[in-house]
Amino acid sequence: MHAIRARHAASAFRRLTPSWNRQQGIRLPLTLAHLPLTCRQLSSGSFQGTSVSIESFAEVQAELLEGATFGDYPSRTHKCGDLNKTHVGEQVVLTGWAQNIRKFSDELIFLPLRDHSGTVQLVLKGSEEGKDGARKRLQDLTAESVICVEGRVVKREGSAVNPKMATGEIEVDLASIRVLNKTHKTLPFLPSNQSLANEEIRLKYRCLDLRRDTLQRNIRTRSLAAWVIRDYFIQNDFVEVETPMLFKSTPEGAREFVVPTRNSGSFYALPQSPQQYKQLLMASGIDRYFQIAKCFRDEDLRADRQPEFTQIDLEVSFGSAKDIQTLVEGLVRSVWHKIKGVDLFDGEPFPRMNYQLAMSKIQHVVDITGDSILEAIVLKSDMKLPSSDLKALSQQDNRVLPVVKISEKNIQTWLHKLPFTERIQGSINEDMVNAALDVQIGDSVILNTRPAFLSGGQTVLGKVRLELASKLQAKGLLQIPSAQYNFLWIEGFPLFSPPETPSPVENDGRKLAATHHPFTAPVAEDLPLLASSPEKVRGQHYDLVLNGVEIGGGSIRIHSPKLQTYVFEKILQMTPEESGRFSHLVDALSFGCPPHGGLALGFDRMMAILCETASIRDVIAFPKSASGRDLVVGSPSGLTEQQLKEYRIRVTE
Amino acid sequence: MHAIRARHAASAFRRLTPSWNRQQGIRLPLTLAHLPLTCRQLSSGSFQGTSVSIESFAEVQAELLEGATFGDYPSRTHKCGDLNKTHVGEQVVLTGWAQNIRKFSDELIFLPLRDHSGTVQLVLKGSEEGKDGARKRLQDLTAESVICVEGRVVKREGSAVNPKMATGEIEVDLASIRVLNKTHKTLPFLPSNQSLANEEIRLKYRCLDLRRDTLQRNIRTRSLAAWVIRDYFIQNDFVEVETPMLFKSTPEGAREFVVPTRNSGSFYALPQSPQQYKQLLMASGIDRYFQIAKCFRDEDLRADRQPEFTQIDLEVSFGSAKDIQTLVEGLVRSVWHKIKGVDLFDGEPFPRMNYQLAMSKIQHVVDITGDSILEAIVLKSDMKLPSSDLKALSQQDNRVLPVVKISEKNIQTWLHKLPFTERIQGSINEDMVNAALDVQIGDSVILNTRPAFLSGGQTVLGKVRLELASKLQAKGLLQIPSAQYNFLWIEGFPLFSPPETPSPVENDGRKLAATHHPFTAPVAEDLPLLASSPEKVRGQHYDLVLNGVEIGGGSIRIHSPKLQTYVFEKILQMTPEESGRFSHLVDALSFGCPPHGGLALGFDRMMAILCETASIRDVIAFPKSASGRDLVVGSPSGLTEQQLKEYRIRVTE
Repeated sequence: MHAIRARHAASAFRRLTPSWNRQQGIRLPLTLAHLPLTCRQLSSGSFQGTSVSIESFAEVQAELLEGATFGDYPSRTHKCGDLNKTHVGEQVVLTGWAQNIRKFSDELIFLPLRDHSGTVQLVLKGSEEGKDGARKRLQDLTAESVICVEGRVVKREGSAVNPKMATGEIEVDLASIRVLNKTHKTLPFLPSNQSLANEEIRLKYRCLDLRRDTLQRNIRTRSLAAWVIRDYFIQNDFVEVETPMLFKSTPEGAREFVVPTRNSGSFYALPQSPQQYKQLLMASGIDRYFQIAKCFRDEDLRADRQPEFTQIDLEVSFGSAKDIQTLVEGLVRSVWHKIKGVDLFDGEPFPRMNYQLAMSKIQHVVDITGDSILEAIVLKSDMKLPSSDLKALSQQDNRVLPVVKISEKNIQTWLHKLPFTERIQGSINEDMVNAALDVQIGDSVILNTRPAFLSGGQTVLGKVRLELASKLQAKGLLQIPSAQYNFLWIEGFPLFSPPETPSPVENDGRKLAATHHPFTAPVAEDLPLLASSPEKVRGQHYDLVLNGVEIGGGSIRIHSPKLQTYVFEKILQMTPEESGRFSHLVDALSFGCPPHGGLALGFDRMMAILCETASIRDVIAFPKSASGRDLVVGSPSGLTEQQLKEYRIRVTE
Repeated sequence: MHAIRARHAASAFRRLTPSWNRQQGIRLPLTLAHLPLTCRQLSSGSFQGTSVSIESFAEVQAELLEGATFGDYPSRTHKCGDLNKTHVGEQVVLTGWAQNIRKFSDELIFLPLRDHSGTVQLVLKGSEEGKDGARKRLQDLTAESVICVEGRVVKREGSAVNPKMATGEIEVDLASIRVLNKTHKTLPFLPSNQSLANEEIRLKYRCLDLRRDTLQRNIRTRSLAAWVIRDYFIQNDFVEVETPMLFKSTPEGAREFVVPTRNSGSFYALPQSPQQYKQLLMASGIDRYFQIAKCFRDEDLRADRQPEFTQIDLEVSFGSAKDIQTLVEGLVRSVWHKIKGVDLFDGEPFPRMNYQLAMSKIQHVVDITGDSILEAIVLKSDMKLPSSDLKALSQQDNRVLPVVKISEKNIQTWLHKLPFTERIQGSINEDMVNAALDVQIGDSVILNTRPAFLSGGQTVLGKVRLELASKLQAKGLLQIPSAQYNFLWIEGFPLFSPPETPSPVENDGRKLAATHHPFTAPVAEDLPLLASSPEKVRGQHYDLVLNGVEIGGGSIRIHSPKLQTYVFEKILQMTPEESGRFSHLVDALSFGCPPHGGLALGFDRMMAILCETASIRDVIAFPKSASGRDLVVGSPSGLTEQQLKEYRIRVTE
């Protein structure tokens, strides 16, 4: 059964990749087809308002009787992109979107017709009486109107054959055309436009943008990826469980969206993750849980952040960190194999790296006082980045990082002339450092100090490194092979860290916060340190990184209620009110809860990587804009007085 | 491929039904197993508070070193319920929840061990030294503690064989026991209790209740049903698309939950359904969409209503109502076949009924004035329902329906003595009516008047009929074979109806509201009536009813922007502000939108029917209570001043 399913699944997904598909000589099935768009750009014109005005019912009726009626058109027999020379001679019915007409004469008119499977050329020939209605309709057609046509598939001859089209060897000799829905307005842009309209317009008229080849394919790929993911989980004995969206506010965490109720002063909150419920499911004996879950966070948005986002969420009972990582590797392999045709690491386990080591991959220059070190990134002289870019890069976190342009003058002395020179421990030797870092005249060195022992998140230079790579790629100065998928597990994080500043809640002098979250289990051998030196305890926490970006993370959880209580009260020093918010979890641990752990992957981010786009907006059907607005429906928006009254709230300034 | 997938899927789901499974001699695989619970009831004791108190880290450490440590126990080799005589002689490792110990002597102790696959008997024999640790641990064990054991599978002899247990022919001779997590508190109830604790306690300690056989099976069945559903859609070229949860408020509809933003006065709303987005997806060329979607409604709750609920949502381009119904029948058949082993209607199309006819299945007695009719339900004398029940039934919608107890005295005259007698048209003839309705002495007749031409929803007697059926079933007076699945399509609803009273918004004398929603298309042949007699126009709207309860509905949508605008402005008489809320939809229709239609099924309700339970709370992992509270986490709850300030809202009384 496994083999059958695997074969079927593999063949289903092979069809997704157009090039693989053509190599195999396999016809693209409908949902998975590449969409070649061949229409030319319309003159843009000015875009009219948003309403369609009508004078009378007669007007409506006339249009309906002429065209846009319901159901009285024949069912399609084929999809446009599926037609090829094996269909020559067949009578077919097609539906789709008209592209731009090419009229050679009254007796020879071409019209490409597109649907989600591809495009096929329709041709109206001759001047027979029966075709007059068709000719007039064709000539009146606007691009992107929806039509239904009947005709016969014929071979194209000689130079008419278009090798660039999947359907390029044939065309459809039209017998009839029905207009199902003409465009009633000038479109603000055409899906086929070579240069994209600005993103705000495209977000507002999302249904037009989604007709574009790339986005259409992304949305379909996402559907298929979700299916591969669920299939993998079901095969591995996971149970899909929906967890509540109307959850409870936890003010100490990141900012959450709240939901008023008609019970004055009582609010639900939208969950940042299913974390607590999935642990409860383990206590419930579910054994293995998964969900492709909507999560919410009210943070400031960025190119890769949405207020609502999707996680692939899982939890496992009676498994070690290694067991869970192996399951996740299997999941990721399955997706990469079926969507990209790539076998990650040839089946070998993904590489692992210790957190401290990972963080020191950026060149450690020297040790400096205060348990800190000096780090550097060297930008070689042939990477000609404009100084404005370099200046922008050096501005991080409200400070300006020193950037040294190495010249003949300073190559022997640059280490002596830094703001932190006097903190450098031991003797300062530019020759040795230059040799170690391969610093030469013309290079630029970006510098930063950081604590020697790290406890989570990115370092400043870590961020700079990624931004630098982006800028260089954008300028064509750096090629990162797109088919390179460098997955990496990072482990060995400290269990606790100094609280983030600024913290959403005043810390009252608390010294430690949880690095991942307060339910993460310590590494077993570090247990004795919990009482004496908790900052040295490592957590059973693992992050999954892909090409330098974190795409997921998880941990083994604490399953002992005594240990959990100890962590809450003695180490994190939660107040009774704060720890009381988790009493239901401690109860569940007290009622016979198995050892358990899990992980969550960012599904949007994963899809962006699979679809080779930088923006997660390109893999979400209806994303929010950079300012959190849904430009299609116009939200967020105001409420009526009545609604505010019902929810017992008043808006303040 | 179809055949392979179907075979595989069929075999996967055959395993779900325990009886079918045993017939086939197939071993139950893990996720789908029936969970026989054999533990006996603990004395309940009083339930202690919610915190686990600890004195010192030493206490924590002692427990961890003794038992609940991480990862240093062997991995399970089998699941409890999977063991049988084929394993005799094998060394196994098992994990699970200890049930109640039975101690025959120091040298013979039995312990059933349960996991989600079933229960197996463990036995500690003899008095060897190596087992002393095990003996002590066993004796100290509390029921529902989580343990890991190693031992050897042995045959049970003679009368020790338990034919009622799947594992009843064998037991496991224990070599060692590790306690992974003992219960730290007295449990408020045991999953195995024969009589259920009250629902509030069970909702609060949901993880205990979910260990119960029935609920565990329901949750797993739901997971499998979701998989069957998605599989069906993917096979039929549907694309799964996630639609936004942070949507826009539409005040004219049912009450929605709103979500404040940090932009003063600006709110999102949680969607009642993905309706608008799925239509936009058709305009986007997605062709066929599906989603198992979370929806939200802030209405007063009932046994079968939750503030958040799940719909199976679909939309199709270029399809007729019949096409969509056929697709949905295929979906439902697939689920019923794989989950219940039932072939609905032997593959024939589901029956259809016209709405007006469906509503008159309750006996139409006579025509009465005011375009109304008199309806009756006859409760036969052998259905001995207490008069208190009958009285309760007669109280509907703030009125009391007449109930006539037929006796010798009134059997010839009862029609002459009703409140509405004078409205009866024509001559009144009890003999004829009694014959037609089969009314006899001892029967009770429940009566109501209603308009002759109906426009949506249930009639009063329709409700009474269902409530009556429930009460009779509860008293064992009525057997409805549980395996009877009477599906029915109802069509021919009027497109428009008088507005509901009380309407959430003042209607300003508007005469008509949309029966289903304002985007429903009229039946083509009724188009000419739109201008002259809109109340006579039928809609292309279809409801799917199962055993008298609606489980879903949908329609063909208007795809002409002119017709949509006409309906908004001329028939529904929306203000520009109201119709403006849908301008994005009218735009999408204007940009070349194909004819389309769809449907949504109530997934929770469907699961309740499949799992043969009256309450949807039994098929939802973490449902809200009858008052909308999440009793596990304690929501809804208050917010901090800080949070209210951030969202620019103030709570009023």
